[in-house]
Amino acid sequence: MVTGIENTVRKNLISDDSLILGIDGGGTKCKAVLMSPDNVILGEGTAGPGNPVYGLEQTKDSIKNSAIMALKQAGMHPREIANISVGVGLAGVNLPKHYNAIMNWKNPFKQIFLATDLLVASLGAHDGGDGAVIVTGTGSCGFSYVDQKPLILGGHGFPQGDKGSGAWFGLKAVEQVLLALDGLGSSTQLVELMLRQLKVKNSAELTEKVAGKPASFFAQLAGCVFIALDAKDQIAMSIVHEGASYINSMAEKLMSTHPPRMSLIGGIGTSLFPSLSRHIQNALSAPLSPPEIGAVYFARQNMSGFLPEKPVS
Amino acid sequence: MVTGIENTVRKNLISDDSLILGIDGGGTKCKAVLMSPDNVILGEGTAGPGNPVYGLEQTKDSIKNSAIMALKQAGMHPREIANISVGVGLAGVNLPKHYNAIMNWKNPFKQIFLATDLLVASLGAHDGGDGAVIVTGTGSCGFSYVDQKPLILGGHGFPQGDKGSGAWFGLKAVEQVLLALDGLGSSTQLVELMLRQLKVKNSAELTEKVAGKPASFFAQLAGCVFIALDAKDQIAMSIVHEGASYINSMAEKLMSTHPPRMSLIGGIGTSLFPSLSRHIQNALSAPLSPPEIGAVYFARQNMSGFLPEKPVS
Repeated sequence: MVTGIENTVRKNLISDDSLILGIDGGGTKCKAVLMSPDNVILGEGTAGPGNPVYGLEQTKDSIKNSAIMALKQAGMHPREIANISVGVGLAGVNLPKHYNAIMNWKNPFKQIFLATDLLVASLGAHDGGDGAVIVTGTGSCGFSYVDQKPLILGGHGFPQGDKGSGAWFGLKAVEQVLLALDGLGSSTQLVELMLRQLKVKNSAELTEKVAGKPASFFAQLAGCVFIALDAKDQIAMSIVHEGASYINSMAEKLMSTHPPRMSLIGGIGTSLFPSLSRHIQNALSAPLSPPEIGAVYFARQNMSGFLPEKPVS
Repeated sequence: MVTGIENTVRKNLISDDSLILGIDGGGTKCKAVLMSPDNVILGEGTAGPGNPVYGLEQTKDSIKNSAIMALKQAGMHPREIANISVGVGLAGVNLPKHYNAIMNWKNPFKQIFLATDLLVASLGAHDGGDGAVIVTGTGSCGFSYVDQKPLILGGHGFPQGDKGSGAWFGLKAVEQVLLALDGLGSSTQLVELMLRQLKVKNSAELTEKVAGKPASFFAQLAGCVFIALDAKDQIAMSIVHEGASYINSMAEKLMSTHPPRMSLIGGIGTSLFPSLSRHIQNALSAPLSPPEIGAVYFARQNMSGFLPEKPVS
């Protein structure tokens, strides 16, 4: 972490227009990083949700607010944003509707380079190079980018897709606990763990507690499954087996595109890793940088003449 | 169907306070029936949604509007509602919160007898007697009422419960179609059937079409599964097998309470029946009357001294 004074000294040595902002928008927050040409982080910022599928205006606000926060941390005036190019990674911009909504924004930046959240995650994980990522956080998705060809797998949302994600593990656990409480499924320690976490006593209270809740709520219950798994709970083992099988088959498919590197990222990754097939575990490399730095790489590649990513129709 | 004039003649022969209104509130509509002491239907009415869990004020409006419609069809003035007792069956009133919300309503009736939608469905199906019902419509639920002891199974809502329901069949089908389109699952005719019904061409369009949709949307896709089942589609067979297994085990559990009769009701029932176990099929009897008539029986039983159903805490 660099201080404001150090940043001011450093940034006086380089012109504003060689600095790049990288921004990664997500369902819960938007992260920005301001980077010098020699890859020094001058400032960072975090703002609210940045998923245009669920809120376009909020996303624009979050992009702008996180960027200004990063500029301020670098000792710069917010108005200098007009001299700075930005790389932005957002969910949903593989669809022309969302891509165009962002590109038509009268944004405050010098210029904007827009990619999917997946591409910037992959560029970050592989320091700007080709590669593949498997994301298992609240949702799940697979992505590879090799020779400028993107492949997207999964990421179909909750509850119909996103197998092997936090939300999916939480949903499967709730399903099994409700079956157990009705006497129509096995009653294991997963029941007790979940009732305790949600502070409910029975099936009726559990039903009311989870009714109409979004993916993020269910994702918070995924921890129960992995705690129960450690204790060799049969139901947890069966749920994790199903989720891991899906992630294994997604990884196989990504590997068929011959990515030089492949990483597992997202909040569930660490918990899920031990349950993946051994040869998938061996194929995985640690991510080198976070997605917002991948967004910086994306902007640089476009500025140096690489073709910008087109939305997939 | 009786005409207004015939009804006016008939109802002049009997006093208002021997007539009973029966009302069945559901997620999409509220049905009312006005019945004479000799079980003649004098009038019927249908109004909007009547599920207090999703809208208390709307439910009260729908109860009142469907009742007034039934009175008018019987040739009566709406103000006569004040002389009439009503039996009402509603979802969610097994929880004290919703039970009390309805009972504290300054309602327009002479008196109100409130039961769960399941109890009035069972009383209707078995002409006021003990019995069990398995409901598979948009949602799914099992219920038995024997010697005044209610047993509720399932009915935990979408997407975490309601296995074997229309919404569940639709959701499972969407899951499988998305896997197939990613090349991570078998591609069968179910894919084509669903893409055609939803008028979408690929995975991205399907994902966008189903994003954030409620149970009722997914329930409309259940038909695809049963069409594909008829053509021996492997994926459809596997989905129906899982749903039918759950309904079989629910039926077994209900049968352990020794109900004199058991019926399968709801929009999915007819499609699902052939896939149930032979001994469950043999244990099922046709429902004798609809739930709103069950609500009339419930009111009569309470007025004649039976204990009213208490909410389950």
